[in-house]
Amino acid sequence: MSARQGGRRRTRGGAARPDRSSGQLPEPIGVFRNPLPPVELLDATDLNRLIDAAFRVLQESGLEFLSVRCLDILEKNGCKVDRETGIARMDRATVEHFVGRAPETFTVHARNPDRNTIMGGNYINFNTVGSPPNINDLDHGRRPGTYQALVDLIKLNHSLGVCHTMGGSVVEPMDLPVPTRHLDNAYAILKYTDRPAFVRTVSEFRAKDAIEMVAIARGVSLDRLRTECSLLTSFNVNSPRRVDEELLEGLLCFGEYGQAVAITPFTLAGAMSPVTVAGSLVQQTAEALSVIALSQMANPGAPVLFGGFTSNVDMKTGAPAFGTPEYVKAVLIGGQIARHFKLPYRSSNVNASNCVDAQSTYESAMSLWAVIMGHANIVHHGLGWLEGGLSASMEKCVIDAEMIRQWVAALAPMDLSDEALGVDAIAGVEPGGHFFGEAHTLDRFETAFYQPMVSDWRNFETWEEAGAINATQRANVIWKQMLEAYEEPPMDEAVDEGLQDFMKRRKHELKDVQP
Amino acid sequence: MSARQGGRRRTRGGAARPDRSSGQLPEPIGVFRNPLPPVELLDATDLNRLIDAAFRVLQESGLEFLSVRCLDILEKNGCKVDRETGIARMDRATVEHFVGRAPETFTVHARNPDRNTIMGGNYINFNTVGSPPNINDLDHGRRPGTYQALVDLIKLNHSLGVCHTMGGSVVEPMDLPVPTRHLDNAYAILKYTDRPAFVRTVSEFRAKDAIEMVAIARGVSLDRLRTECSLLTSFNVNSPRRVDEELLEGLLCFGEYGQAVAITPFTLAGAMSPVTVAGSLVQQTAEALSVIALSQMANPGAPVLFGGFTSNVDMKTGAPAFGTPEYVKAVLIGGQIARHFKLPYRSSNVNASNCVDAQSTYESAMSLWAVIMGHANIVHHGLGWLEGGLSASMEKCVIDAEMIRQWVAALAPMDLSDEALGVDAIAGVEPGGHFFGEAHTLDRFETAFYQPMVSDWRNFETWEEAGAINATQRANVIWKQMLEAYEEPPMDEAVDEGLQDFMKRRKHELKDVQP
Repeated sequence: MSARQGGRRRTRGGAARPDRSSGQLPEPIGVFRNPLPPVELLDATDLNRLIDAAFRVLQESGLEFLSVRCLDILEKNGCKVDRETGIARMDRATVEHFVGRAPETFTVHARNPDRNTIMGGNYINFNTVGSPPNINDLDHGRRPGTYQALVDLIKLNHSLGVCHTMGGSVVEPMDLPVPTRHLDNAYAILKYTDRPAFVRTVSEFRAKDAIEMVAIARGVSLDRLRTECSLLTSFNVNSPRRVDEELLEGLLCFGEYGQAVAITPFTLAGAMSPVTVAGSLVQQTAEALSVIALSQMANPGAPVLFGGFTSNVDMKTGAPAFGTPEYVKAVLIGGQIARHFKLPYRSSNVNASNCVDAQSTYESAMSLWAVIMGHANIVHHGLGWLEGGLSASMEKCVIDAEMIRQWVAALAPMDLSDEALGVDAIAGVEPGGHFFGEAHTLDRFETAFYQPMVSDWRNFETWEEAGAINATQRANVIWKQMLEAYEEPPMDEAVDEGLQDFMKRRKHELKDVQP
Repeated sequence: MSARQGGRRRTRGGAARPDRSSGQLPEPIGVFRNPLPPVELLDATDLNRLIDAAFRVLQESGLEFLSVRCLDILEKNGCKVDRETGIARMDRATVEHFVGRAPETFTVHARNPDRNTIMGGNYINFNTVGSPPNINDLDHGRRPGTYQALVDLIKLNHSLGVCHTMGGSVVEPMDLPVPTRHLDNAYAILKYTDRPAFVRTVSEFRAKDAIEMVAIARGVSLDRLRTECSLLTSFNVNSPRRVDEELLEGLLCFGEYGQAVAITPFTLAGAMSPVTVAGSLVQQTAEALSVIALSQMANPGAPVLFGGFTSNVDMKTGAPAFGTPEYVKAVLIGGQIARHFKLPYRSSNVNASNCVDAQSTYESAMSLWAVIMGHANIVHHGLGWLEGGLSASMEKCVIDAEMIRQWVAALAPMDLSDEALGVDAIAGVEPGGHFFGEAHTLDRFETAFYQPMVSDWRNFETWEEAGAINATQRANVIWKQMLEAYEEPPMDEAVDEGLQDFMKRRKHELKDVQP
């Protein structure tokens, strides 16, 4: 097994610059833990006021569950269910009791055990962009997603070495039939990368298909899968206060098989939730906790994440905005709430720009500091999101990978040995001299510093003579080189056949399903 | 006095979107304090190891001071001076004693008292870019700086409402004679903005000229100026371990008149300091502390800042790199060292890109989180830096202003009143409904959210039809609108005449000075 395959942890942030022209890919970042304490935007009093308000919402207003089966479960476990409206109200003690059954930390298993990862604590995991209907790159512009684009995005993200999990679907393959598209999606993620899979789980049959496929890919039984979480999904509450039947089916199925669900209200302040950040967080908390409680009533101990997706709309136009100051506040406080309930936390790397420019970069940079310093355990849409999620961008994947790698390097431990402190090295250079030729320098320079993929540090004249290529244009060159250099992670032929046989059978069974 | 002139503190991050087409400028951000504790990258043990090493450098190797007057001062105050080499060595107790005389916090006075600001504590002040030889904008590309470009940069930054101090010079007016350029520089800063002035102080005569001019601008005597710091400057140590005579002259002159100096070693790891971040910080600390001690020997209590400018070079080419992971580490630890010695802290918002693209944005974004979360009391080069400081960019000023405003809004206090928590507002919207028409929304929507200058949140189709203009192109439009809308802060005619008379006299006196 090569060092790259081994998922070796990079501790110095100083891997050699990848020579992509010779097909060399950057070393994967491996496990990423944030050694700094999370940023706490609210003090305990304010945090408790916010949480109290969320419990008032659950007690007084409740949520509408569009599932008789779920209403039965809720009623059986002490919630007040109104069968006419489908609304379930629940008291604080009940919710706290069931939320307390969810695990604080859990492992997600990959088909390559070296890629297993942990959700919880100070583990920060990055996932690819998920579910945009469009693909975007500088060569072909923006167009509907295809299966080929999906595969390219998986290969690129695999090569970029930054994702801890992948999928969900990375771009929607609009050229495939809706009833069976989830099978191709799951296959592509299981085949072209060896990271744990993030999948979509609308409806029970889709959830179950993904579960069966990951069991085949890992070569384990469904019984063993129940004790080894191997799939992640995100579940959006239809905010405000409504939960759709197809999603609830997926939730229960995933819980039954021990797979993880990030329960994520979609609370755009001013549209689907109150216009205040505080009010949106109250609603987010109420919605997430009630569905988490339901998940634990149905399947005690099932792995879940407290999901946050609170941002705001442009009140002039109603357009969604992302990576804003309000988003930063919501991400940081969302993390506080998740930790209060000892739940792993899901957040996102977002922006609302229509192209890969300064705006997409500063909105993503604001998102990234919030999710990393807010200790989001999984950062969905970590790479490639554009246009508020309506496009997956090849160039943005590269820029996001660069930004994430810089964060990982900035938070990597520092060498504070006597040699690194360098008192003697300093003494050895005369005043006004330089350190270029010193042994202390020569012994270390190859790995001393973070080596970027995208940044161009040449002087202006050299850069201009070489065509004045900007970072987005360089990212365009890089993703093509990376697709060239992509190496498919090994998969037993029998496993591949098993996956293909399963897909073939299910496609036949599902051929008459209405989308 | 209008609300804008009043320097009113914005507490909700929700000022109305500036309608620049009608000449309305955004409200200045006012005083900015970071309510979050600073990020501490090192624990106490490691921090002390680093500081111990810095004192070893001062004891064993010392610094070369290219000034007989300074060597006299150092010797008289207990340092071991080698007259042949010009090297002064100093023990820890001496350095700590004199560094302890520097003020922990001080006020900087503006000609408009509403613009006075504070250096120290959790006050974060932004200054313009300083000293690049080139100006850069999308219309005319990159070309040598001129006096007109300098004035435009000051006017733009005044209008952007983000700078707490300005100058230094914002761009070098290469069309003016070197011996008297500092006079035009100081005049432009005192005339076209009412923020405290940042000036350059190479040589005693330049320092003294700036002091006399700010006294005229403020209408106060030199005696009163001694007790009211009204100027800032930055002083670069000629790292490693050498301090030039002209800078020392400026330092002593500024100290004598009670004006503030940010003592800033220029420690590019691998070039002017050891290739390790730890070693560069050791050298930075040794150099800064020794010059600060000297400043206090000469003028006890003179305002100074502990300056950090540790970054790294690209070890393949020797080119300087900025906004890197190593830069982030150095900024955060630099802040820890400054706080250890109870000194205000100076840092910078930097990048090494040659154009206003994703690279310039992510390098600046990494710098900004480090300087803001590291509690830098003044962020020199806060707006407009490009190419590692070789250009001042009009578009970058606008992008940086946008990023800084977003940080200020993200860290602004949050409304957690019962009304903001919105339990009743949530109850009032049916499941699956929306909040657009609710009274709770309508009462608040105009000021609920941060309103960006540059970000475009329209959908892809509308954006594409409107020409697919990226953020840098939008910034180009904005700076021209802002120059149009610029309003000169009022200055008494007599004061203006006083400044012009002083310049005229000094230009005559200096006409034969060799540059």
